[in-house]
Parts: sequence; C-alpha cells; structure tokens
Amino acid sequence: MTLVKVYVTYKESILDPQGEAIETAIHGMGHNDINGVRMGKYFEINFTDDAKDIDTEIDTICDKLLANPNMETYRYEIVNAEGAK
Amino acid sequence: MTLVKVYVTYKESILDPQGEAIETAIHGMGHNDINGVRMGKYFEINFTDDAKDIDTEIDTICDKLLANPNMETYRYEIVNAEGAK
Repeated sequence: MTLVKVYVTYKESILDPQGEAIETAIHGMGHNDINGVRMGKYFEINFTDDAKDIDTEIDTICDKLLANPNMETYRYEIVNAEGAK
Repeated sequence: MTLVKVYVTYKESILDPQGEAIETAIHGMGHNDINGVRMGKYFEINFTDDAKDIDTEIDTICDKLLANPNMETYRYEIVNAEGAK
C-alpha cells in the first residue's frame, strides 16, 4: 500500500473567507502574534500495490474531483509503503 | 514570520463519510487501485516574529478552535521563517 497526502488550498489571488474568519476568532482568543490564516482540504489516499502510475492518477483525481481548477491549487506527497496503513 | 502547517483528521475510530463518498467517486472514475480515502482540514497559520511559545499557542488554538477533541486529532509542522510568506 502506498499513501499519498494531498493538500488543496485556494490560489493566492482568491479571497479565503474561512481563513479570515478563523484569524478573527484566533485574535479574539487573545493570540495577537498571528498574521494570516489559510484553510484548505487535506486528503489521505491509499493506493494498492498494483497501482502503476500514481503521479498521473493523482493529477487526474485532483483535476477532476478534489480541487476546483479555477480557484484552488493542489500539491501532494507520496509516502513510501511503510507510511501507509 | 513563521509558518505552521496544521492537519486535522478524524480519529481512526470515527466514521469518515466524506472520505467514503470520495472513494466511491474515485472508483466511479475507473481508478480501482485505491483502497481507502480520508478527508481532513488543512491550515496554514503565520506567526509574527515576536511569537514566544508557538507550540503552546498552536495546541491551545487547535484544542479550542480548529479540532473537535471528541472526534478529531491534529498534528502540525513548524516551517522555518524562510518557508513563511
């Protein structure tokens, strides 16, 4: 099994209302040494051992399903088999 | 500025309906070499240079705001200043 970790965040140019709301809440908790919060989605995807071309598959899955290409960008890490469940 | 990356996921014992729905959709796209998808939240938090004890602050912020202690677990990475915006 191979674990792939995917991180999907808004593009820099896109307003991140959730991130801003969280930053306001954090400041409300008294943490004033924080200057910028961004929120995104995190996925852990397990590939079976017979997966051929994980990079291509992940790109297809992200482009078509996990990330909105107009507003979001993604990056991923392939964790070796030991890191997977 | 110091960037902290926070990952919030469901505890192992908790059902992850979103992860299961995504796995079903991925299989529907014809990717049958995937065996398990988990979805979580991802945060990027920028601390100013005068932040004193980032570890303690992050634990407090996660426990009180970003993660539901009953259902979710979190981990974080402190990226050195160069990695921050």
